Amino acid sequence: MRLSARNVMKGTVVGLEKGATTAHVRIDIGGGTVVTSSITNQAVEDLGLAEGKTAYAVVKASNVMVAVDD
Amino acid sequence: MRLSARNVMKGTVVGLEKGATTAHVRIDIGGGTVVTSSITNQAVEDLGLAEGKTAYAVVKASNVMVAVDD
Amino acid sequence: MRLSARNVMKGTVVGLEKGATTAHVRIDIGGGTVVTSSITNQAVEDLGLAEGKTAYAVVKASNVMVAVDD
Amino acid sequence: MRLSARNVMKGTVVGLEKGATTAHVRIDIGGGTVVTSSITNQAVEDLGLAEGKTAYAVVKASNVMVAVDD
Amino acid sequence: MRLSARNVMKGTVVGLEKGATTAHVRIDIGGGTVVTSSITNQAVEDLGLAEGKTAYAVVKASNVMVAVDD
Amino acid sequence: MRLSARNVMKGTVVGLEKGATTAHVRIDIGGGTVVTSSITNQAVEDLGLAEGKTAYAVVKASNVMVAVDD
Repeated sequence: MRLSARNVMKGTVVGLEKGATTAHVRIDIGGGTVVTSSITNQAVEDLGLAEGKTAYAVVKASNVMVAVDD
Repeated sequence: MRLSARNVMKGTVVGLEKGATTAHVRIDIGGGTVVTSSITNQAVEDLGLAEGKTAYAVVKASNVMVAVDD
Repeated sequence: MRLSARNVMKGTVVGLEKGATTAHVRIDIGGGTVVTSSITNQAVEDLGLAEGKTAYAVVKASNVMVAVDD
Repeated sequence: MRLSARNVMKGTVVGLEKGATTAHVRIDIGGGTVVTSSITNQAVEDLGLAEGKTAYAVVKASNVMVAVDD
Repeated sequence: MRLSARNVMKGTVVGLEKGATTAHVRIDIGGGTVVTSSITNQAVEDLGLAEGKTAYAVVKASNVMVAVDD
Repeated sequence: MRLSARNVMKGTVVGLEKGATTAHVRIDIGGGTVVTSSITNQAVEDLGLAEGKTAYAVVKASNVMVAVDD
């Protein structure tokens, strides 16, 4: 499946914390950048996510803000 | 200003395309990753964005999906 | 690629309108429901979208609101 | 109240799971499609959501991605 | 229709700029705050939005970030 | 840091509820408006949020819908 999302960043799962219904997943995409994602626990199970596994962080362009230093 | 957004990725503006009201900004955050952002033209002007400038791509964790290979 | 997004709805592209940088795509997912998506023109080209083509509307659960009648 | 959101899909609540602060609601919108929504527990209470009740899944067009098969 | 969105802010349309497919609407919600919204041109027409009209800015809680001064 | 987000609303934290992984923060921005935000518990800690503290509610324009009365 190919996606319209402009940002599909390949990396490795380096953190996984499950809450009551929502989990936080941390993906190291290289270059010193770790991306944090908040998804449902059910998605974590469906994708078989676990530390050390290859995964992609996917972000729609309209959900990316830009900031500059003052 | 410090932000709740879990993902603040520093980089350099490498692309900037303005439409009628919406602009697309591309930020090279290193490690071979270029992030595409869709923001208002007005924001581009307010931040003084231009190719070659330092900028941050900012993404709330709840807007990051995760994918895995089949 | 498998996605964490809880909502992946298969359908047929029934409308496609490109603006200056942003396009609107309408996907008929059956049962009388047509989903409208706003994506970049570039995504439309990359995916080769056109009326009559099979496509999926993809929505993260955290981007779905719920409403009830008064 | 009428909404700018392009996607207002009428259905029936077929699942409701409350976590510590966040709930997941599943709405069957017909045609074999069940939409999953992640909202606050407080919203669930305010709207009086329960299985079997009529409800709408509401999604802003800019939050809908598009995908195609490889 | 009642919404799960935690933030429904009543105000007056004080600005309206239509682009090729996307419009920017500015709503004065009082207390010196003007909220800017980016929606489809089609939504602007469907809602009959115009300067001076009463309207609501609607935001899902998961789309609100928090910031603090350094 | 300056942000592309069109909506940066200054106020005071008047409510803070932490769940398993996700927290709800309520910010009174004046004029009778209280904005509710859903962020990670980790962000609450990083920003040192607490009732009575000054904080900003930040919303990207593309995440603001518009509604009108029937």
